[in-house]
Formats: sequence, C-alpha cells, structure tokens
Amino acid sequence: MSLATSSQTQSQRAARQVIEACDAIASFSETPDNLTRTYLSAPFHDVHNFLSDWMRRLGMAAHVDAAGNLRGVYACGKTHAPRLVIGSHIDTVPDAGAYDGVLGVVIALTLIENLAENLTEPLPYDIEVVAFSEEEGVRFATPFIGSRALIGDIDEELLAHTDLDGVTLSEAIESYGLAPAAIPDAVLHPDSVAFVEFHIEQGPVLEELNLPLGVVEAIAGQSRYELTFRGKANHAGTSPMHLRRDALAGAAEWIGAVERHAQRTPGLVATVGRIEALPGATNVIPGEVCVSLDIRHASDPVRLTALHALIEEAERIAASRGLRLDTVQQFEASAVPMDARLAAALETAAGATGASPHRMISGAGHDAMVLAKRLPAAMLFLRSPGGVSHHPDESVLVEDVQAAIEAGLYLLKHLVPGQLEHVAPISHKP
Amino acid sequence: MSLATSSQTQSQRAARQVIEACDAIASFSETPDNLTRTYLSAPFHDVHNFLSDWMRRLGMAAHVDAAGNLRGVYACGKTHAPRLVIGSHIDTVPDAGAYDGVLGVVIALTLIENLAENLTEPLPYDIEVVAFSEEEGVRFATPFIGSRALIGDIDEELLAHTDLDGVTLSEAIESYGLAPAAIPDAVLHPDSVAFVEFHIEQGPVLEELNLPLGVVEAIAGQSRYELTFRGKANHAGTSPMHLRRDALAGAAEWIGAVERHAQRTPGLVATVGRIEALPGATNVIPGEVCVSLDIRHASDPVRLTALHALIEEAERIAASRGLRLDTVQQFEASAVPMDARLAAALETAAGATGASPHRMISGAGHDAMVLAKRLPAAMLFLRSPGGVSHHPDESVLVEDVQAAIEAGLYLLKHLVPGQLEHVAPISHKP
Repeated sequence: MSLATSSQTQSQRAARQVIEACDAIASFSETPDNLTRTYLSAPFHDVHNFLSDWMRRLGMAAHVDAAGNLRGVYACGKTHAPRLVIGSHIDTVPDAGAYDGVLGVVIALTLIENLAENLTEPLPYDIEVVAFSEEEGVRFATPFIGSRALIGDIDEELLAHTDLDGVTLSEAIESYGLAPAAIPDAVLHPDSVAFVEFHIEQGPVLEELNLPLGVVEAIAGQSRYELTFRGKANHAGTSPMHLRRDALAGAAEWIGAVERHAQRTPGLVATVGRIEALPGATNVIPGEVCVSLDIRHASDPVRLTALHALIEEAERIAASRGLRLDTVQQFEASAVPMDARLAAALETAAGATGASPHRMISGAGHDAMVLAKRLPAAMLFLRSPGGVSHHPDESVLVEDVQAAIEAGLYLLKHLVPGQLEHVAPISHKP
Repeated sequence: MSLATSSQTQSQRAARQVIEACDAIASFSETPDNLTRTYLSAPFHDVHNFLSDWMRRLGMAAHVDAAGNLRGVYACGKTHAPRLVIGSHIDTVPDAGAYDGVLGVVIALTLIENLAENLTEPLPYDIEVVAFSEEEGVRFATPFIGSRALIGDIDEELLAHTDLDGVTLSEAIESYGLAPAAIPDAVLHPDSVAFVEFHIEQGPVLEELNLPLGVVEAIAGQSRYELTFRGKANHAGTSPMHLRRDALAGAAEWIGAVERHAQRTPGLVATVGRIEALPGATNVIPGEVCVSLDIRHASDPVRLTALHALIEEAERIAASRGLRLDTVQQFEASAVPMDARLAAALETAAGATGASPHRMISGAGHDAMVLAKRLPAAMLFLRSPGGVSHHPDESVLVEDVQAAIEAGLYLLKHLVPGQLEHVAPISHKP
C-alpha cells in the first residue's frame, strides 16, 4: 500500500468520523423530534461538553467566552506564535439539518487530530478552533452575535435585545452562567493572523458542476426592499379589463421583469419571496399588492445598478397602469471579499489533493464575513446534495468531507502564517 | 309649464324620495356604525315593516312568504289578470352601501305610487313587488335563497345549511316567525308573466360612457378555478437563477397571460384575485404558489374557450419551468340571457324618456338570473358613480334615478303582458 493510499484511507476514516460526530451533536436539540438549537439554549451545554472534551483529548486549552463561543487553542509551544483561527457556528435554524455550521467545527478538530498524529515537527503557528455560539439570528432576530464578539462589535444596544420570551441578550448570557461584563475579553487574540471556515454550500452550484469543493471569493452584498402597488379593488365581474387598475397584474409584470433582469446579469440573484394581495377574494380585483425583493451580487455597484433599474421598472409599470408605488428599503449589506492570498492557498490545497475546486460567491452570509473585518479570511464550501439546507434532509457526501479534510491538512502543513497580514485593526460597526 | 315639464318635476321629486327611502332603510342594520343586514337578521323586521306599511298605503296586499320575501300585490281588479313581477333584494353584504338591492324595491313601489296618481283607467295586469330576502349569499354562503323560493328551488339539503353560529336555514326561518313547511307556497303565482329588476350597475361602464341607464342583455356565465404551481423552495442567496424552480415567477408569468388574453377577447373579464406564496419569506424562493381565476363572459363558448386556453397556457408555463401544476374547478355557472322582447321594451321605454340606454352584460349575478328560469326577465341598470358598490361610498345620482323612474312609468303604461310568454315551466335545479 502506497503512502498516498494509506493517507487516503486515513482521511476517509476521518470523514466518516466527522459525519458521525455531526450526527451525534444533532441529537442535542431543544425539540424532541427534530433539530432546533438556538443561541444558549439548554442543549448548548451538551455541545460545549462534547466539543471541549474532544479539544482536551487533543491537548487543547478550551474555554467558553462571555458570548458563548467555545474556543480551543492547539499551541505549537512558541511564545507569541502567530495564530490561525478556524471555526464555524453551532446554533441552528428551527427544524435544521445536522451539518450547517457544526460541520466546520468538527472538521477543524478532525484536522488537528489527524495532523497531530502525523506531525514530525511542531507547527510554526498556533491553531484556535472557535465554535461560534450564534450565527443564524433566530433567538434575538440578529445574526452573527458569536463572531461579532470576536471583533469587539457587541454593544449595550445589542445586549438589550429581547427574545420572544422577553429575555434580554444580557440576561441570556447570565442564565447560561457567563458574565456579560467579560464580553470585551472575547476579542481575537492579538497574534491572530487569519481565519478559515469550512461550511456546506447550502446551494446547488457544486452539485450542478459535479464538484466536491468550492473556494469562496466573496460573500455577496444584499439589498432587501418591500414594494407596494396600489390600484383599485373592484368587482371581478362588473369591471371591464380596460377600466381596471389591478395591483396584482402590475406586481406580476414586475416579478417577470425582476427574473429577466437577474437572468441576464451574470452572478446576480433576485428573488420575490413574499407576496400579499388585498382584499384577497376570488371575485375581487386586487387593490393593493405588497411584494418583497431580495437582490444579491458579489459586486456592490452591479447590485445597486440592478436594484435601481428594478425600482425604476416598478415605477414605469405602476405609472403605465395608474397604480401608486411605495418602496421601502429594509436591509442593505455590502459585499465582503475574502482574502485573495488565503483563498488562493485554499485553492492550491484543494487542487493538490485531487479536487478541482470551483471559485464561487457565497450568496448567504457567514461568520467569515464578520471575521474578514479583522483578519484575512477565506472559506471552503462542501457540496450540498440537492442544494438542500435549513432542512432535516440536509446532507454531505463522505467523499466530499474526505476531500475537504485532505485539502485542510495540506493547507495546515503548507501555510506560512507570516505571509498573511492583518487587513485592518479591530473595527466597530458604525 | 308644459305637461312634460310637470311630469319631469314629479319624477325628479319621486327620485329624491327614492334616495331618501333607501337612506332610511340603510339605518336598519345589524351593526351600529355601518350597514350590514344579512338574511333574516333582526333589522329585517324593520325593513319588512317599513316596506309593507308603504305597500298598504298604496292599496297593495302584502305578506312575507316562508322564505322571508316580502311580497305586495297591486291588483288591477280583473280576475286571472296577468301578473308583472318587479323586485330586487333587501339583504346586504357586510359594510354595505345603501342602494345595492333595496333601490330596486323602492323604485318598484315608487312606480306604483306615481302610476296610481295618474291612472285614468285600470292597468290591464297586476303588479307584484317582491323584496327578495337573500341574494348576497353572506349568511349561509349560498346566494339567491329568496328568488330560488319563487321558482321552487329550495330543497332539504339547502334548509340544512348552517350559518357561522351553527343555525340551520330552517331554524333561521322559524326563529323569524315563519314556517319552513310553507316554502312551497312561495312559488310564483301561476299568472306571473314577466320579471323586471332595477339595480345599480356595480361597475364603471355606464359612468365611463356618461350614460344614466343600461339594459342588460345577459348575465355572464362564470368559471372559478384554483391553480397551484409547485416548484422548489430554496435559499434566495445561494440558488443561481438558472437552477431555480420558482413557483411565483411561473405564477406571475401566467397572471400576465390571463390579463393579455382577456384584454384581447371582447367582453371577457378574467381576474386573479387571490394569491398565496409559500413559504413566504423574503429570502426564500417560493416553492408553492396558489392563485385563483375568475373568468366571465356572456357567451359560454367564448368563456370556455378562453378558460381552456388559459389552463393550457398555465401547463405550458409550468412545463417550461419544471413546475408541477394542479387545477381545481371551484364554480361554474352558465350565462343567462335576458328576455329579448322584454329587454327591447325596457330599451324603448328608456329611449322614449330621453335616455340613450346602453345595452350591456351583467358581470355579476342577480335575482333576475334565477327568475329567468321561469319567466321572461329583464334588468335595467342605473349608473354606479365611481363604479363603487359593496362599500359605504356606494351611491346613485338623483337624475339617474329620475331617468329610471321615467323609463319604468313608460314601460308600465305601455306594457302588453299578453305578448310575453312563459319561457319554461317551473324547474328544479338538478
């Protein structure tokens, strides 16, 4: 048996263990029949225990910071060694799958486990594995609370947010046994030099390309709007077509324009996900229709140009039909580029192990987006079978996890942390 | 002052009295701040008293039949005289206007009042004024209960229908002080020869033409369907446009096709009044969209041809987008032509008094549609300012009511009942 084959056998076994660990952690749920694990809910203790026990078996120093992030350091033994941060999140959406988030934490520990078994000399850097406590934004309707703590972006206003039971974020932290006053201590260690996140794609692109891995170049910027078309409700039987001001016919024309515009703009995704027509009776012409717009692109100028064109198109359609139009901006986030050198290193690592990683944009937000404000950051996506995520059917293929582990091990063995520089000092959101 | 001017002054005064009477009757409501008067609700007693007092002042024999219809006969004195039936309904939709239905009853009594004052010799026929108890279908989710009693179309199944409080139709009749067993006695008198209904248009056609009156040629046939487009719900950020199966984009394309098809088919109205998109989140591509279709035309073949073309178009759109389509028929009613000779007589009457009546189709159902199964039936529409109906802002213009009264008086003075024949024996719905 060649060394390569022996290594592949090892990584295949490791991949199976990764999936088993994710499945084991999926049993730690707030709900008996499915997986729901929101920020600092009771099953967080089980996850923290499961992962911190593992960290300690690997010789890592583990603790839970004041924002609920579990952090374990695998030290190389040198003082002031540069620190590579690897992590993802352990909270879930309601009725979740077993891999969104957790997979990235489990892969990180598995990399250390497999690396440690094979190291002939110490690494030239420390590795900190972070299990972020909050990414999905479910409990406090605010995402990225865990990673925001690492860049010093938790303020009093956020601590006062309440969940559906009226519990504030601050109270939730105390109830878990942590001290809100210690949140500033959760910021990244000053020797941190880079952040890497492994995550399922949560979309169909890699499956469509029949590729196991994707290297993320940027996380798309995003605009969310609500548009209301107002016409005149009227009797469906007594109003001739030429005398109507049908708000739904106008909205439908615009939904078609949204789709066509996105289809002819490379990389753009635009979605109308919500629609409400009033009064909403079979025999009444809709007088008012409210629709949502979600539009994303890796380039902010491309996104904003498309957004303005679509709002102008809505205004044109409304004017031509005698409708009134209201547009309300609901959310706006700029695109976040990943670090080019770190992404290239990930691509090289994946390529060296036989995968042909696809360079791609993440249409969803991730912790790496937050960390990128402070550190060179990059992400490796694993194919999502069926493009399914946020659903119990969410899965990963063992061979894709194996490819990710092989790429990760290559990266860790070849990474030269001194070549990665801080891109910005710790910054607070405006 | 010429005789014509004197007559016009009289009809103008009569028109003002009609509007005052409608406004007075509008105060008889189940609700304190607006007008809601559903079938056999408490204020029905007030309306019955108001109208039967008026009938008796006019020398009419008045009674409430077992279906709750108030019926008054203005007898010409001859035995076995032919009988002209004039009527409309006195129930309302919730939060109604003051004229839908009631106007036709009040005009009928006003015609007799003004006719009686001027008759030099007895009419050659009796007039029966009917205030139909139920047309809107609000209380028992079934319309036309009042007029169906006149054609013998109330069966045990209908009597067992329940309202929202679980009261059966039969119980509601008893609670009002009537005897369900006597419903068969409510059928039309065998000497009845024709039915005429005055009603507000409830649409914008006459206003658009700047005309006070319309003669109804037919009541449109109607189909109602529910269509469900099923695609695949997915993340709005991670699903490229070319890999989507967006049920809302498909439904929107079809809504556009519905509108265009109706616009290019003379007389056709087609409406999508209801739409529901699931899961209905801003950041999720809709996986399932349910829409309603309401399509009407005076010609059943034209309506059915259009309906089939639109369902085929939905199938084509669904197939081209990888969507599944379900179509469910919810309601189907054939067009009902009005009696040609009676409609011509109404047109002549309106024309003789200076109006240029517009021949038109009623897109809404009316009691005349039910009576037409038994008698030659016709309708005269009065302009609806703003096309507004089923709303507190519903109104009529005094000059339009005056025109209707003048046309009605002309019709009554010139009608030769012997020329109108029964079109069919009393028939029961299958």
